Amino acid sequence: MFGFAKRDTYSIIEMVIAMHYVRGFKEGKKSILYGNRGMCLENDLNDTNTFYRLQNRAVIYKKPTPITISKVDYPSRIEAVIKEAYFKTPSTTDYNGVYRGKYIDFEAKETKLDYFPLANIHVHQIEHLKLIMKHGGIGFLIIRFIKYNKTFLLEGKDFLEFLETMKRKSIPLSYFEEKGHIIKEKYQPRLDYLESIDTLFFKGESV
Amino acid sequence: MFGFAKRDTYSIIEMVIAMHYVRGFKEGKKSILYGNRGMCLENDLNDTNTFYRLQNRAVIYKKPTPITISKVDYPSRIEAVIKEAYFKTPSTTDYNGVYRGKYIDFEAKETKLDYFPLANIHVHQIEHLKLIMKHGGIGFLIIRFIKYNKTFLLEGKDFLEFLETMKRKSIPLSYFEEKGHIIKEKYQPRLDYLESIDTLFFKGESV
Repeated sequence: MFGFAKRDTYSIIEMVIAMHYVRGFKEGKKSILYGNRGMCLENDLNDTNTFYRLQNRAVIYKKPTPITISKVDYPSRIEAVIKEAYFKTPSTTDYNGVYRGKYIDFEAKETKLDYFPLANIHVHQIEHLKLIMKHGGIGFLIIRFIKYNKTFLLEGKDFLEFLETMKRKSIPLSYFEEKGHIIKEKYQPRLDYLESIDTLFFKGESV
Repeated sequence: MFGFAKRDTYSIIEMVIAMHYVRGFKEGKKSILYGNRGMCLENDLNDTNTFYRLQNRAVIYKKPTPITISKVDYPSRIEAVIKEAYFKTPSTTDYNGVYRGKYIDFEAKETKLDYFPLANIHVHQIEHLKLIMKHGGIGFLIIRFIKYNKTFLLEGKDFLEFLETMKRKSIPLSYFEEKGHIIKEKYQPRLDYLESIDTLFFKGESV
């Protein structure tokens, strides 16, 4: 009986661990190290992409964080421990993959403000999105406004149009409300952004 | 005059540095750390992909090496140094991108032997290639036989057929010679694998 009581105490911890694991704990842990930036959106997207893969809907992954490794230790013949490495400025967006035969490519960011600061997207990433579209891929942004709990998909062409016509350092929420497409939050998938892609690029036909 | 002589002495070093840089020195440096594995093929492919991008032919990148970061130091407010990290088993292939509107995905390996050991491709990567093809992407392998200085493109379907019909732990060179497509080595691009993709997937029509 005591064993069971003890077991009950553990089960909550186990549940929390299991929940964290399901919600992409590993990625979450990494985000904590970066100072909690973009953790929730990243986890939601990782869950969504896992769900899409399991449902055979699409194969989309977050790319690993680009780093420059400068020191590796080999404590044993098969084990390698990186002892010194540095974060590199990404030259591409974070997410890519294939959906309905098309190449999908996007960057995802959160903002606590009423606008999205353009400093959050590197120049290389903007150039990358331009090229993707030029080569027939589907490029876009996913931006979450934390304060309003709203997540938008903004097509690459609308993002570039803003950059070219408005000489501003940030995109206001109103632009996302006008040109963007709100992504519904669900139980599963967490953020069904492919629903927006169906509407925008496949005339609303689902697979 | 003395200044010029001195300059001539340096120019060789500068040329070597420039050559290394052009041939993807940064990636090469990383490979040295891993024990020189796959360095030449990786560099050739990085050069080729850079050339393709500059020529506006395709947008294809090698993904960063997947790692799990466990310790980060912040020597200053803006600087972050990774002090402990581990290599992760990759769940996808190394290269992907977009070409002529299609999703491109492949894994590249070198072998010093007369055969290609299947242990060099992870189970997850095989599953990944299967999924890519299922979703309408173009999946393949690029395998270099160092001893023969031959590099082959093997279509995903032929790779999977081998795995399903032959219960072997390696693919012999003869299978690549029969089913694969030899990739020509050129000055630029170093390895014109998209030429094979044109032949195989676009009825030989170039862009």
